[in-house]
Amino acid sequence: MTETRLLREQGVTAPAGFRAAGIAAGIKASGNPDLALVFNEGPDYAGAGVFTSNQVKAAPVRWSQQVLKGGRLRAVILNSGGANACTGPGGFQDTHTTAEAVAAALSQWGTETGAVEVAVCSTGLIGDRLPMDKVLAGVTEIVHEMAGGLVGGDEAARAIMTTDTVPKQVALHHKDNWTLGGMAKGAGMLAPSLATMLVVLTTDAKADAATLDQALRAATKLTFDRLDIDGSCSTNDTVLLLSSGASEITPSPEELEAAVLAACDDLCAQLQADAEGVTKRVTITVAGAGCDDDALVAARCIARDSLVKTALFGSDPNWGRVLAAVGMVPFTIDPDAITVSFNGSAVFSDGAPMPGAREVDLSGADINVVVELNQGSGQAMVRTTDLSHAYVEENSAYSS
Amino acid sequence: MTETRLLREQGVTAPAGFRAAGIAAGIKASGNPDLALVFNEGPDYAGAGVFTSNQVKAAPVRWSQQVLKGGRLRAVILNSGGANACTGPGGFQDTHTTAEAVAAALSQWGTETGAVEVAVCSTGLIGDRLPMDKVLAGVTEIVHEMAGGLVGGDEAARAIMTTDTVPKQVALHHKDNWTLGGMAKGAGMLAPSLATMLVVLTTDAKADAATLDQALRAATKLTFDRLDIDGSCSTNDTVLLLSSGASEITPSPEELEAAVLAACDDLCAQLQADAEGVTKRVTITVAGAGCDDDALVAARCIARDSLVKTALFGSDPNWGRVLAAVGMVPFTIDPDAITVSFNGSAVFSDGAPMPGAREVDLSGADINVVVELNQGSGQAMVRTTDLSHAYVEENSAYSS
Repeated sequence: MTETRLLREQGVTAPAGFRAAGIAAGIKASGNPDLALVFNEGPDYAGAGVFTSNQVKAAPVRWSQQVLKGGRLRAVILNSGGANACTGPGGFQDTHTTAEAVAAALSQWGTETGAVEVAVCSTGLIGDRLPMDKVLAGVTEIVHEMAGGLVGGDEAARAIMTTDTVPKQVALHHKDNWTLGGMAKGAGMLAPSLATMLVVLTTDAKADAATLDQALRAATKLTFDRLDIDGSCSTNDTVLLLSSGASEITPSPEELEAAVLAACDDLCAQLQADAEGVTKRVTITVAGAGCDDDALVAARCIARDSLVKTALFGSDPNWGRVLAAVGMVPFTIDPDAITVSFNGSAVFSDGAPMPGAREVDLSGADINVVVELNQGSGQAMVRTTDLSHAYVEENSAYSS
Repeated sequence: MTETRLLREQGVTAPAGFRAAGIAAGIKASGNPDLALVFNEGPDYAGAGVFTSNQVKAAPVRWSQQVLKGGRLRAVILNSGGANACTGPGGFQDTHTTAEAVAAALSQWGTETGAVEVAVCSTGLIGDRLPMDKVLAGVTEIVHEMAGGLVGGDEAARAIMTTDTVPKQVALHHKDNWTLGGMAKGAGMLAPSLATMLVVLTTDAKADAATLDQALRAATKLTFDRLDIDGSCSTNDTVLLLSSGASEITPSPEELEAAVLAACDDLCAQLQADAEGVTKRVTITVAGAGCDDDALVAARCIARDSLVKTALFGSDPNWGRVLAAVGMVPFTIDPDAITVSFNGSAVFSDGAPMPGAREVDLSGADINVVVELNQGSGQAMVRTTDLSHAYVEENSAYSS
């Protein structure tokens, strides 16, 4: 291989040393695939994870946080069809039981595995206990299926979908002959501190848990943390990175970090493009803030504003709503120093509208909003979407 | 009069010593009424005001803030059909010119008035200059109309409507023979630090500017500041309180404060009931917080959550979204100690759902969500609405 390539196929099984599977275990009433397994064949078993910052954390998040303390990860079991959040001690026990069942099945198959090496991820409706009879039967079946020799990345990516309309996968083939792969799900309840999403990244590069952790935190901070579809942060957000070391190549920490960032960025764009009810892919860039953190706060203020988002749904260059939103930032700004542009056309400058500001064409699917505060060099970009009828429709009839 | 009565008629002209008018000046393309005047005939001219906390303040807000520094207010001129926000120095000059025209017309009519005694309020689209030829011709006409002897409170309340579907008025007749009246507009861009709204309150009670100011701040803090329709705070929010002293009664500061609070609370309920796209009137009460401020922050977190609001639009008791929203508060909570109820039915307690939680009937127009944090005695209530198709429709096609 002479150059690094980024593809959208194979996903978690693109790197050497990983197998995966996805099956329909009957957790979803629809009968669609709902159980996925990612398995690290080694020789290394390093792992890292980042999790939701929501104080209301689902049972699988609390379990997987404990698992990751060891820095060692053999397998990840993921289910859609139920978040197992707000389900009390019984819900936590269900997660524990699931991890034990995965470890037992893998051990039976000849790979001695402990429950503390198995991360668990769940997504779906908050508040219902999982149908454990189906989950446990599914665990037996999925390990059997994976043992059959399938690579299964595609199937795993499909099995974690909820309101997603397409599976999201990425594979970055590094020119130095190692690979980083990944899959993601997430369509709504997408907000900072990770979207409502589950992401599993795998690599055959050799890297210890600390190096993986550093690369993962740096990448998620710039990608998933800056994807804000509806300002709602999930109880179940999980991003995991597993290394098999099977390539026997040890990239520099910088190379690894760049690869993880590129993969996360690509998955992020896929999540944005498939967000609930999306008709516009919107990027909000705030520049000229006192620092990057201020810029990020301002970009989020705009990205979360319902009036900005409904205007963009209507392809309406209603820049006044952008100004009104940015006027609520918790640091001092000078309104007269701000410039605003839509898709490269300046619409507001020197405290007043620019000629033609109401005629900017926003009819396309991609809208870039740039706000220059002119008070420093801080900059940040947040990805969001419009607020459409389809978003309301999808979210007004989810649980019932 | 033997008891205090609260009615929804007459509005700003219910108290003695006030006249008002509302006309169609041609500012709105629709030809609907768009210019209102409230005039204080005295003998006192005390006034107080509270304004948007948005850093991007419309020209009329900046003008009226200056006017109120004197604590003296003779008249308020209000227009719909244009916010005169983000319109540069020219926009501010337009406001100044309007106040001068009102003062000149009133002086000509025999009431010596200075421009610095005239507050200006504007509402409508951000970013366009007002058609000053129409505004100034309208000022001449409206003063003439008011001089004709009409009381005109109803007409004024109609002329300030934008996306409002009904005028909002209140009149509190105190048993001690003084009266407090008011009118309000506001349907979207309604969020803390005052909704996108214009409110004028009048009273014939005798009270100095400082007393009015204190009563007004105390009342708005508990009412308009806790109305949050879409989390978007306007550039034009203004609440004014004028006293004519015509009743020659001087209520105690507590009596006045109670009356202002009752009037603001009633106008607030009217704004909530007529909010853009509303199909549900929702109150979010958070109790058991460490302090009232924490409770308010938590209530706002829930009231602004798009997933909570779309679920309520669907009459869906999706309490998990309430938990996920409250999990993002910026202070420490204990998720297992929280209880949540919908319309009096407990749905979540002791870290797990209550039996029947998914079957709570939310099909009615009023929904009460109560979250008990069980960590103190702080409490707060926020009024909001659901997030409906009609909200999206109304706001995706406003400017164009």
